[in-house]
Amino acid sequence: MSTNNKHFIIDPTTLVRDSLQGLVHANPHLSLDAQQKVVFIKDLASRRSHHVTLLCGGGSGHEPSHAGFVGEGMLTAAVCGHVFASPTSSQVLSCLRRIYSEEMGSLVVIKNYTGDVLNFGRAVERFKSERVHQGKSMPKVTMVVVGDDVGVVNPNDEEEGGVGRRGLAGTVLAYKLAGARAANGDSLEQVKNTIEYVASHTFTIGCALNAASVPGQGMPRSLKENEIEVGMGIHNEPGFEKKTLESADKLIDGLVNHIVKSQPFVKASPSGKGNVVILVNNLGATSNLEMGLVTKLAVEAAASRGLKAVRVLSGTYMTGLAMPGISLSVLVLPDNQQEQQELVALLDQPANCPGWINQAHQVVDAGNTDESAKGPAQSYTPASDPTWERVIETAFNNVVEQEPEITRLDQLMGDGDCGQVLLSGATAIYEASKDKTLPLNDPSAALARISSIVEDAMGGTSGIIYCLFLDGLSQQLHQILKGSQEKSLTAKVWGKATLGALDTLYQYTTARPGHRTLIDALQPFAKTLAETGDIKAALEAADKGAKATATMKPMRGRAVYVGQNDGLADAGAVGLVSVLTGISEALQK
Amino acid sequence: MSTNNKHFIIDPTTLVRDSLQGLVHANPHLSLDAQQKVVFIKDLASRRSHHVTLLCGGGSGHEPSHAGFVGEGMLTAAVCGHVFASPTSSQVLSCLRRIYSEEMGSLVVIKNYTGDVLNFGRAVERFKSERVHQGKSMPKVTMVVVGDDVGVVNPNDEEEGGVGRRGLAGTVLAYKLAGARAANGDSLEQVKNTIEYVASHTFTIGCALNAASVPGQGMPRSLKENEIEVGMGIHNEPGFEKKTLESADKLIDGLVNHIVKSQPFVKASPSGKGNVVILVNNLGATSNLEMGLVTKLAVEAAASRGLKAVRVLSGTYMTGLAMPGISLSVLVLPDNQQEQQELVALLDQPANCPGWINQAHQVVDAGNTDESAKGPAQSYTPASDPTWERVIETAFNNVVEQEPEITRLDQLMGDGDCGQVLLSGATAIYEASKDKTLPLNDPSAALARISSIVEDAMGGTSGIIYCLFLDGLSQQLHQILKGSQEKSLTAKVWGKATLGALDTLYQYTTARPGHRTLIDALQPFAKTLAETGDIKAALEAADKGAKATATMKPMRGRAVYVGQNDGLADAGAVGLVSVLTGISEALQK
Repeated sequence: MSTNNKHFIIDPTTLVRDSLQGLVHANPHLSLDAQQKVVFIKDLASRRSHHVTLLCGGGSGHEPSHAGFVGEGMLTAAVCGHVFASPTSSQVLSCLRRIYSEEMGSLVVIKNYTGDVLNFGRAVERFKSERVHQGKSMPKVTMVVVGDDVGVVNPNDEEEGGVGRRGLAGTVLAYKLAGARAANGDSLEQVKNTIEYVASHTFTIGCALNAASVPGQGMPRSLKENEIEVGMGIHNEPGFEKKTLESADKLIDGLVNHIVKSQPFVKASPSGKGNVVILVNNLGATSNLEMGLVTKLAVEAAASRGLKAVRVLSGTYMTGLAMPGISLSVLVLPDNQQEQQELVALLDQPANCPGWINQAHQVVDAGNTDESAKGPAQSYTPASDPTWERVIETAFNNVVEQEPEITRLDQLMGDGDCGQVLLSGATAIYEASKDKTLPLNDPSAALARISSIVEDAMGGTSGIIYCLFLDGLSQQLHQILKGSQEKSLTAKVWGKATLGALDTLYQYTTARPGHRTLIDALQPFAKTLAETGDIKAALEAADKGAKATATMKPMRGRAVYVGQNDGLADAGAVGLVSVLTGISEALQK
Repeated sequence: MSTNNKHFIIDPTTLVRDSLQGLVHANPHLSLDAQQKVVFIKDLASRRSHHVTLLCGGGSGHEPSHAGFVGEGMLTAAVCGHVFASPTSSQVLSCLRRIYSEEMGSLVVIKNYTGDVLNFGRAVERFKSERVHQGKSMPKVTMVVVGDDVGVVNPNDEEEGGVGRRGLAGTVLAYKLAGARAANGDSLEQVKNTIEYVASHTFTIGCALNAASVPGQGMPRSLKENEIEVGMGIHNEPGFEKKTLESADKLIDGLVNHIVKSQPFVKASPSGKGNVVILVNNLGATSNLEMGLVTKLAVEAAASRGLKAVRVLSGTYMTGLAMPGISLSVLVLPDNQQEQQELVALLDQPANCPGWINQAHQVVDAGNTDESAKGPAQSYTPASDPTWERVIETAFNNVVEQEPEITRLDQLMGDGDCGQVLLSGATAIYEASKDKTLPLNDPSAALARISSIVEDAMGGTSGIIYCLFLDGLSQQLHQILKGSQEKSLTAKVWGKATLGALDTLYQYTTARPGHRTLIDALQPFAKTLAETGDIKAALEAADKGAKATATMKPMRGRAVYVGQNDGLADAGAVGLVSVLTGISEALQK
């Protein structure tokens, strides 16, 4: 059985009203008439006196459509029906009464669905009747119906006077452009013309990986594993094709192809080329990660056909509840440059509502190149040093020797890779040394270089712990060597630098002595070396610390998940001791 | 098998890069270093010269986090790892080099996960090493780690130096407040202090109805039908409790309770009361409809505990791919009024990036009441009229008589309710007439009243078609009766009004003669009546039109889905004729 029927819900019958209350909580510019399920802009008085007011609405379940587009620069109000059901004409009428602009008039903009057309239409007629029966003049109210779907074409549409295309996400472009016009103080006629342009020049197709579960009702139907449906509507209406889910590039190219081959598109753009706006819409439950990919592919698929996306909108504009799917909309811009710029300017104009994503178009591009991110060229000269080379070789040999024991310990208490990872790091350093590529005449630079080798060779958490320590040590030595006091690297100076490097490491890990990690060996080593300058004593302290981990409760690292330690020492600490032993042995030779 | 494993994808290994390219297509203020998967603000030069620059990042799959928050007023850049995996220190380093502000310094803000802490930390150290080895001064770079989770507490956290809380959606509040500070030109120290305040005063808990499918990997595990997991992480990490999904009010109250009872919350807010910011986050695949409900419930659950939400954010801020779940975050504001106002002002400051939802807080509330939506009080006086009453009664009786035949036709070619729906309408009008509640001395008002009765009694598409016609008729009569020319309602005048009403209806339906609907009876009736003034002839024309539907291909209405008509007349047209017959009979008496 599907787990898709689960919802955050109290009662399906109050869900829409409750949800609108949440919307208004998060959006202080909105008011709610909870009884009529009408969301309207709070600053209604100034809207009505100077602007055409815009009313939209329809069934719920398409959020942020429609109430999420109510706000300065977009819509004045939205009337919300039950899930996937048109509001009644009484709801719409109550909204019209509330928002009607005596001075500028009002416009009703809806998606093309029979229920919406009839109910919103009837509200308009009731409003007119009511006004004239009150002895007032006939109100200036116009209704525009937007249909942008090219996915499912009613066969009767080919003939004169068809029912027209369904309203999908492209409708939001009509909201936006009309809203911007209204905000600019344009006339009812101008606002209407803009919507009608959008309605006749926007083409949308959707596809979904499954239907959407309806709260209180569940899944109406389910697609098969690996199946996709093309042309699916925002109310789970069946599309025109079910097929095996293909690679996203093929899929999106196919959708764009379907759009540009459709009758309405060809009519609006006979050349099939030119500037367009592309809107990529999340139908509800597509990950934003995938949305980015779809957006890229849609822009490319359009470009390959000579359609240049001068604006690309990508986001969640009109959903079918939590439908895992997307829709693509293409708005064909006017060929006339001035008209085109005008429309684009309306699109760019900021809107203040939660559903609309404002884009920043007045962008200064400082000509940033990726060069700046490349960093300095190699800043060191390889140099040989017999002591360093002996230390590296001895440490490497010791790690080779100890690796089976480290691996055994980690297999019992961790994920078993500790020995091999350490060996990879030691090998890489040894090879770099053998190949004479390390700047061994500059200890600080040498350690920085070794740190990078370690990161590449080891990876993972233990690798980066070594890196951070080595980075810190490199910085410490750099400070010391450029200072006037201590030019010679005595064992005590190394100890002091080691303690300082430990502080760097502590900035990034919460592991401390007693947590059963390599810190239990590293910290006593650094402390003893700094205090005594005796590397042998420091090594003994490290070894003692590593052995003590055998009785510690794991507090960090993977051993935490294993729990008790069964008297085994920590593999990381033992591994570090194997390195330190090699170093110590080499220096005592 | 689950269908949750379907994705819009080409190749999991290129998904993140491709997705970021889509993000940049839709957001012209962003640039992408595709190789390093670094998204940065295009206008970098002016940012770097006057502002602390802010770098964030982490694994991908949490979109809009993190790159969706790059923009004016928020972050300078984001470094993106593979899905659910930290970026490497080399990626972060390349970004640091690019965005570092010599003048103001730079801040790295990340979520508390070991991989991120180590890799971003190492990049900071490498950047420092690189700079000093180049002979430059030690760079002003600070890293702050945000952990806001109170859902899953590492048992070791109770002890000194724990690994701390995980970073969840509350981290976005840190981005926002720090971004606003940086935009205001504040110092690195001030920006850092603000983030640290947020990190220690924000508390988040998540819950999910299922895990999220990972592209290329699928579902890591699935919850049972009707099961919910509380405390689930944004990378599918298990939460602390699985339980039967309860009613959303109980669930959300429980989550808020968990937050306020948590140790870190109690430490930050000993009184447990005061002003807070609430952030309700969609983990990816929760419908926005449900998000509204959750938001309402979260605000209420907080309020019932004395926590007043002075700001409520609701949206998709930090996802776990397409995880069906939500998280709640509570930011405890400072008690000090000035500090509180300062933080709230930073939150309100606009940010220009696709992930952030700007709220309009400078709102003029014009004191809109719901009174304005109620419309005029009953504007007519009931009045009796023997002719009208006879017409209504006869029409009703005729519908009663014809109902079985209409039902039979609709059962064969539609959904079978046409007869009953028509009878309901006729009955309601007849009863209103019998009860003397209709304003029969004013034909226009009477028809408007009858239209409302029809809407309530009939509903559905056929009901509203009748309503729209009656509304149009009412308006026509009103115009005619107030004009100077025609004060007497002759049959011809009624015919003219009927034709006008048909035009009103045509605005909202595409049904025309020949489409096999009631228009096939109504149009000839209106036309004949207007031309001849002979109601008997008009009725004959209507009847002829209705009968002709028997040979028409269905073009509108439910019969479209049935297809062929089997020689049956349209039930709606026959139903209208039954009404018209009654009217005609009564008037000829």
